[in-house]
Amino acid sequence: MIEIPAHTIAQLLYLVHTDPEELREALGELRAPDIAEALRELPPEAAAKVMAALPFDLAVQVFDEPELTRHRCAIIQLIEPRKVGPLIEAMSADQQADLFREVPREERPRLLATVSEPTRASLQKLLQYPPETAGGIMTTEFVSVPSDWSVEQALRLIREVGGRKETVYAIYIVDPATQELVHVVSLRELLTAEREDNVLDVGNRRPPLTVRAEMDREEAARLISKYNLLAIPIVDDQRRMLGIVTVDDVIDALVEESTEDVQRFGGMEALDAPYMEIGFVEMIKKRAGWLCALFLSEMLTATAMQRFQGEIEHAAVLAMFIPLVMSSGGNSGSQATSLVIRALALQELKLRDWWRIAIRELPTGLVLGAILGVIGFTRIVLWQNLHIFSYGPHYFLLAVAVGFSLVGIVAFGSLAGSMLPFLLKRIGFDPASASAPFVATLVDVTGLVIYFSVAFLVLHGTLL
Amino acid sequence: MIEIPAHTIAQLLYLVHTDPEELREALGELRAPDIAEALRELPPEAAAKVMAALPFDLAVQVFDEPELTRHRCAIIQLIEPRKVGPLIEAMSADQQADLFREVPREERPRLLATVSEPTRASLQKLLQYPPETAGGIMTTEFVSVPSDWSVEQALRLIREVGGRKETVYAIYIVDPATQELVHVVSLRELLTAEREDNVLDVGNRRPPLTVRAEMDREEAARLISKYNLLAIPIVDDQRRMLGIVTVDDVIDALVEESTEDVQRFGGMEALDAPYMEIGFVEMIKKRAGWLCALFLSEMLTATAMQRFQGEIEHAAVLAMFIPLVMSSGGNSGSQATSLVIRALALQELKLRDWWRIAIRELPTGLVLGAILGVIGFTRIVLWQNLHIFSYGPHYFLLAVAVGFSLVGIVAFGSLAGSMLPFLLKRIGFDPASASAPFVATLVDVTGLVIYFSVAFLVLHGTLL
Repeated sequence: MIEIPAHTIAQLLYLVHTDPEELREALGELRAPDIAEALRELPPEAAAKVMAALPFDLAVQVFDEPELTRHRCAIIQLIEPRKVGPLIEAMSADQQADLFREVPREERPRLLATVSEPTRASLQKLLQYPPETAGGIMTTEFVSVPSDWSVEQALRLIREVGGRKETVYAIYIVDPATQELVHVVSLRELLTAEREDNVLDVGNRRPPLTVRAEMDREEAARLISKYNLLAIPIVDDQRRMLGIVTVDDVIDALVEESTEDVQRFGGMEALDAPYMEIGFVEMIKKRAGWLCALFLSEMLTATAMQRFQGEIEHAAVLAMFIPLVMSSGGNSGSQATSLVIRALALQELKLRDWWRIAIRELPTGLVLGAILGVIGFTRIVLWQNLHIFSYGPHYFLLAVAVGFSLVGIVAFGSLAGSMLPFLLKRIGFDPASASAPFVATLVDVTGLVIYFSVAFLVLHGTLL
Repeated sequence: MIEIPAHTIAQLLYLVHTDPEELREALGELRAPDIAEALRELPPEAAAKVMAALPFDLAVQVFDEPELTRHRCAIIQLIEPRKVGPLIEAMSADQQADLFREVPREERPRLLATVSEPTRASLQKLLQYPPETAGGIMTTEFVSVPSDWSVEQALRLIREVGGRKETVYAIYIVDPATQELVHVVSLRELLTAEREDNVLDVGNRRPPLTVRAEMDREEAARLISKYNLLAIPIVDDQRRMLGIVTVDDVIDALVEESTEDVQRFGGMEALDAPYMEIGFVEMIKKRAGWLCALFLSEMLTATAMQRFQGEIEHAAVLAMFIPLVMSSGGNSGSQATSLVIRALALQELKLRDWWRIAIRELPTGLVLGAILGVIGFTRIVLWQNLHIFSYGPHYFLLAVAVGFSLVGIVAFGSLAGSMLPFLLKRIGFDPASASAPFVATLVDVTGLVIYFSVAFLVLHGTLL
């Protein structure tokens, strides 16, 4: 297990200011991802000096690390201008595009001027895709060969250009006339085939799996993961290749998406940087929006309570169980929501399956509610008879009311929690980002109404 | 985008019972993962017939799909006994092990008897690792060559055995005397190297990254993702190779882990199968445990409320804002928890960083609380003055009490929500599985105490 110890970072920082020769040596022992990790912890000025001390090839690899994100953009402005062009030029196409996405719009022209015309053209092509699409994580560097080549010719090409391409393990066969993608072979298949065979005769002749550039990057991830691919080609309307998405980009995207999902599930906007790198004001902004929205909708609970003021004044004892019944509804709703969100994300469930879930969640909720109802009922009767607390002469009816309202609330929570993600998806929202907090509010308000209604029915004429 | 349409499954089911020849043809057009997907929807008897109709190579590929999980085990018991041995024998080692993990213990000997002695030995080796470790997802099929071989020799070996190994894109160089792993080269590096070079001279000479078999599989995933590897070797104490973990296993593991995280975050035990495949009783079991635990701990809210019964009887109006202030504490706690859980999982934060988070979350919580406090205060004053609802003569003091208690509750929620994951991790629990529900309970109970204490301070002598 490799980890950058904290003292390495301090050491680097020290060497930056003292001994450039030793700095170079210390850096030579590290891998690019480790240097990138250390650079994130250094102030931009020191990071730029470390970059300057790196051999060119390693510097390029370090700058190719997606983890550098925002830092990359601060560092590049401190690097000697004449070195910036070659550095960017040598980066892989997808990381070039990412770098430009991070650079403030007004500084882009200056940076664009440092690169060659072909790179500029490739950048302009890549930058038109939003980062969450397949096009936004694709690279334009892949190995393609005309469909009239032999295996021998293809292998010779790979030997020549191999080092400069993002991946050489998938080789894309295109029609020389139309440039259409007609076949994909793996390097493994190519290596084990006869040298004089035509490339079209290698491997399985099913039409290749492809992705459209504007598709969600999660869709590309799903296909790569389902079909165990190392890369998936991205094609246009005429099935001409635009680029490829590789498995390592997909892993990064998966990790990022699941971070965003967890944060959204926690009821806030997704952060686009690690926790410690977000400024105080930005953190407040990301959290205050949702918190206020939830607060405003939870105000409905106060409105609901106002209707039951009479009941509370008559029987303050009723108020005691408000937090308990409310939270039970919320908990059961949150279980159902997390199950359905995840099943929707993994495409285990389709929109049209909503009723299959509904007819499962209702009985599940009723049983779960009954279990909690019995516990709640027992607690009240027990506390009363053990003289721990006195709920008054009508304690038995109170226990019945709490028990039955739990059945209703938990069943409603399960049903609402499982149906809301479908509804949100149906009307075009991301179910992961909004379901959990909406369910909480909906279940809280409805829970109160159920509780007081059941209490009114059971206790009418006695306590109420 | 490829998707198995529902009618294909019905068609397969129909063909199973009518025309074996046409069934074979229909299956020939599908990819192994698609057939596996269809098999999951078929009854085991029909699935076994589909398997029997597949050409042997495709049948092996289908059975190698990790998505088949439980079904695989039901299907294999319905396949002709003489066909079972060769089928298992041809599967990849990691999937063989997974299959045996799913088979009930009493049936294992019968199944073990169908395979050859070397396979049995490999299985016994793999089955000793729990499925959530790196050893539990590794395979023993990899390409290794002695360190005294030339590039030419290594390439010739790959050409011969390539088709039978899980991956040929990473080649492991071992010391012929000690069997110690000394170097790793990629197929790309091998292809672009001079044929007569020694394999040790190819590629970068840093010591290879390795993983121990008993390490968490997430750790292997993190290394593969960080260093953009296609596979990572697993070694024993003497640095002899036990197997490799490949990138596609890691993707499956990542997707599985994030499903478990979402489900645990939703306050339930993680399911080990898709939603629709879990039986009713099992679903209840997975959910009732946590729900009851939460219910029992939320009973503390009733205990807390009992202490404030006097206050509620004096001022029923106070009860109206209980759900609102409680849910605000819960929401801010849930934000902080999801941030910290995720940062801990991604290793952005270490345990020793807890105080850095604490001194950030406290001011963040105070500001967020102040924002909600102002909104809450305004709402009460506004409703009163617009004559929407009358909170009585002391409405202004009530508004002050609600406002100030919100500051305290939201600040406490943020602090508790961010610290509890650290505490749980410190005492050896998985923070992802327990934090969210514990935070909710802790914040609910404390929130009530804060609310009534502030109310008592502000309203003492007037309303109370």
